[in-house]
Amino acid sequence: MRPVYLDNNATTRVDPQVVAAMLPFFTEHFGNASSMHAFGAAVGGALKTARQQVQSLLGAEFDHEIIFTSGGTESDNTALLSALETQAGRDEIITTSVEHPAILSLCDHLEKSRGVKIHRIGVDSRGCLDIEAYRKALSSRTAIASVMWANNETGTVFPVETLAELAHEAGALFHTDAVQAVGKIPMTLAKTEIDMLSLSGHKLHAPKGIGALYVRRGVRLRPFVRGGHQERGRRAGTENIPAVVGLGKAAELAALSMNDEQTRVKALRDRLEAGILASVGNCMVTGDVDNRLPNTSNIAFECIEGEAILLLLNKEGIAASSGSACTSGSLEPSHVLRAMNIPYTAAHGAIRFSFSRENTEQDVEQVLAAVPGIIANLRAMSPFWQGDGQASADFNPTYA
Amino acid sequence: MRPVYLDNNATTRVDPQVVAAMLPFFTEHFGNASSMHAFGAAVGGALKTARQQVQSLLGAEFDHEIIFTSGGTESDNTALLSALETQAGRDEIITTSVEHPAILSLCDHLEKSRGVKIHRIGVDSRGCLDIEAYRKALSSRTAIASVMWANNETGTVFPVETLAELAHEAGALFHTDAVQAVGKIPMTLAKTEIDMLSLSGHKLHAPKGIGALYVRRGVRLRPFVRGGHQERGRRAGTENIPAVVGLGKAAELAALSMNDEQTRVKALRDRLEAGILASVGNCMVTGDVDNRLPNTSNIAFECIEGEAILLLLNKEGIAASSGSACTSGSLEPSHVLRAMNIPYTAAHGAIRFSFSRENTEQDVEQVLAAVPGIIANLRAMSPFWQGDGQASADFNPTYA
Ligand SMILES: Cc1ncc(COP(=O)(O)O)c(C=O)c1O
Ligand SMILES: Cc1ncc(COP(=O)(O)O)c(C=O)c1O
Repeated sequence: MRPVYLDNNATTRVDPQVVAAMLPFFTEHFGNASSMHAFGAAVGGALKTARQQVQSLLGAEFDHEIIFTSGGTESDNTALLSALETQAGRDEIITTSVEHPAILSLCDHLEKSRGVKIHRIGVDSRGCLDIEAYRKALSSRTAIASVMWANNETGTVFPVETLAELAHEAGALFHTDAVQAVGKIPMTLAKTEIDMLSLSGHKLHAPKGIGALYVRRGVRLRPFVRGGHQERGRRAGTENIPAVVGLGKAAELAALSMNDEQTRVKALRDRLEAGILASVGNCMVTGDVDNRLPNTSNIAFECIEGEAILLLLNKEGIAASSGSACTSGSLEPSHVLRAMNIPYTAAHGAIRFSFSRENTEQDVEQVLAAVPGIIANLRAMSPFWQGDGQASADFNPTYA
Repeated sequence: MRPVYLDNNATTRVDPQVVAAMLPFFTEHFGNASSMHAFGAAVGGALKTARQQVQSLLGAEFDHEIIFTSGGTESDNTALLSALETQAGRDEIITTSVEHPAILSLCDHLEKSRGVKIHRIGVDSRGCLDIEAYRKALSSRTAIASVMWANNETGTVFPVETLAELAHEAGALFHTDAVQAVGKIPMTLAKTEIDMLSLSGHKLHAPKGIGALYVRRGVRLRPFVRGGHQERGRRAGTENIPAVVGLGKAAELAALSMNDEQTRVKALRDRLEAGILASVGNCMVTGDVDNRLPNTSNIAFECIEGEAILLLLNKEGIAASSGSACTSGSLEPSHVLRAMNIPYTAAHGAIRFSFSRENTEQDVEQVLAAVPGIIANLRAMSPFWQGDGQASADFNPTYA
């Protein structure tokens, strides 16, 4: 059984070229960047190159605007906590109800433990932000507004450039969790008003355990991890050189191939969706179909459990996910689909197929060959299922 | 010129067996631990095995007492910040004046930004803790006492078991930064009263960017990095599986070879020291020679600059360090040697030679062949040097 990996929003395979770039830094150039001796000699240069590769992928103005971290979660935590400490007299955070837990659980904690007021702006049924509510929440008390560039579950893209401008009008900082967007859609941060941006290596064929926080020159940063003077005193801890080199290489590969590959990926994704919609009834594509990441498809199948679909897909060698990997295992529909008011019977059966440049047409054919049978089998066993074309009790056909 | 690496307290070469163990997790078993599909299937088991390997090296009672982090610095930060949040009514920290910046800079910050009272207990000229002062500082206000297991610059070992018991008598938690001790000296945490312990992978032939925090069962932990539910909700962020697997393998290798290899390493270290003391005048071994890590030798050469020695050693292919890597580049003697009251003229010329199981007798010979000439040359140029056997102005011969 040929394996098909369509869970790239959870994590990606490390590109073999990335592994190759990293290898010498484990056993050969293994010195610390700060060491004076030959074992550390190649390392400083490699760190600089990687920083420039990431800078270039982001279209940032300066390479020192890139701080390497241990991943997207740490970058997100750093951005919000720093803003609260540096924005004197401002003690509120604006975010959305569909952020990743790396933002939302921190906000919950800040609200409970420190009384920070959190505005969680809602979305409509396509997952698009209520911009009016965002605008109204901004005030002279806003320390930072943090809105993801693209949602991990549906791929819906948010208008972060505009949101950053609005935040600035209120004197607030603007951060975006771009963990899902970086490498998939082009960006030129230098031309935006975005102050901080989080990315995570393992979402773009670099290894796990490495990420970056972009901090625009002039924006003050309070370090989150404290200790030595690494990263110009902005992130302590021995630099993770092999992973940094890997992230740099992955950024370079993404920048080189993005135009062609993301066009190809989008065509594969669109073909998968069209095929499923044509062959399976009572399902719907969630998210903003007009403004989505090219690689993400979230399809809600009415009256069945996402986990059951995943198990049967897995038997056919197909890896996908229901909601985000973090919430797999719980049987609640994801907080994202709930925020979008996706009807319960459909939200429960939501499956995310997420592509990367490593996917092929054959992958799509294999999924299309498997899905209709799986859905039909599961529905045959579902007590809620009332027959093809027959909406079940709380299924709202306006989303179909 | 044959390279000789004697800077293993800064960082170690990743063991090729460790790299081999990691490789499949970059490109083959690259799924997330939480995923339901085949790509994540091997991963949960690998995570469990690695946790047990680390548990076993530490002699901990339960594998779930091990939390994986991004490194020693993050582990240290997590321990102190958690203690302040979980120990209600206790707002003081006791530590030492010779800790790593991962503890000391955080403490400085907590003191300045939150008014946390920090007791920095001093050491004597051999680097041994003033236990009476430690005892006196403990009180019902102490949230946590944090004392390193072994010092990174001199190798001096602290009586952490006793210090933990004293802390408990005062109702305080006890944490030890064991970044330099783990893998070099045997430990059985289950038989101690230590509540938390930090370690860092790259000091024991695992990669950079991975570490662990041991948290004794029953000790409450407030997560430092917040987001998803990884590590039982105690450290958010996608698990860094390849690095975790590498750390596990490195822990296994360290446990297997520790007895033999550290005995051999100690013999090499002792031979180096004896050779240098016999061939070079006006130098002294710093630290507690009776109670040191087997791999560390810190030798202070009077009347010359450590940085100059390093440069000339480097020309002979020899990598060592002056003070800790973090403070290289500054010309102040290290905070550790200052705390020990090592005379200024000697502290400036302190060189740390730190061994690992990868070093050989040939390495020692090469250093012994190089050092006397280097020192003589530099002293010939030093305005402070008054001739062999002649103590310079503020050199205190009691340390010679
Ligand atoms: C939108 C988003 N933000 C943050 C993260 C967290 O990244 P990491 O797990 O690498 O820390 C993820 C992925 O898990 C994500 O999809
Ligand atoms: C004693 C001690 N603690 C903490 C650290 C920090 O570890 P890391 O740089 O891996 O975060 C080091 C090494 O740099 C150390 O020697």
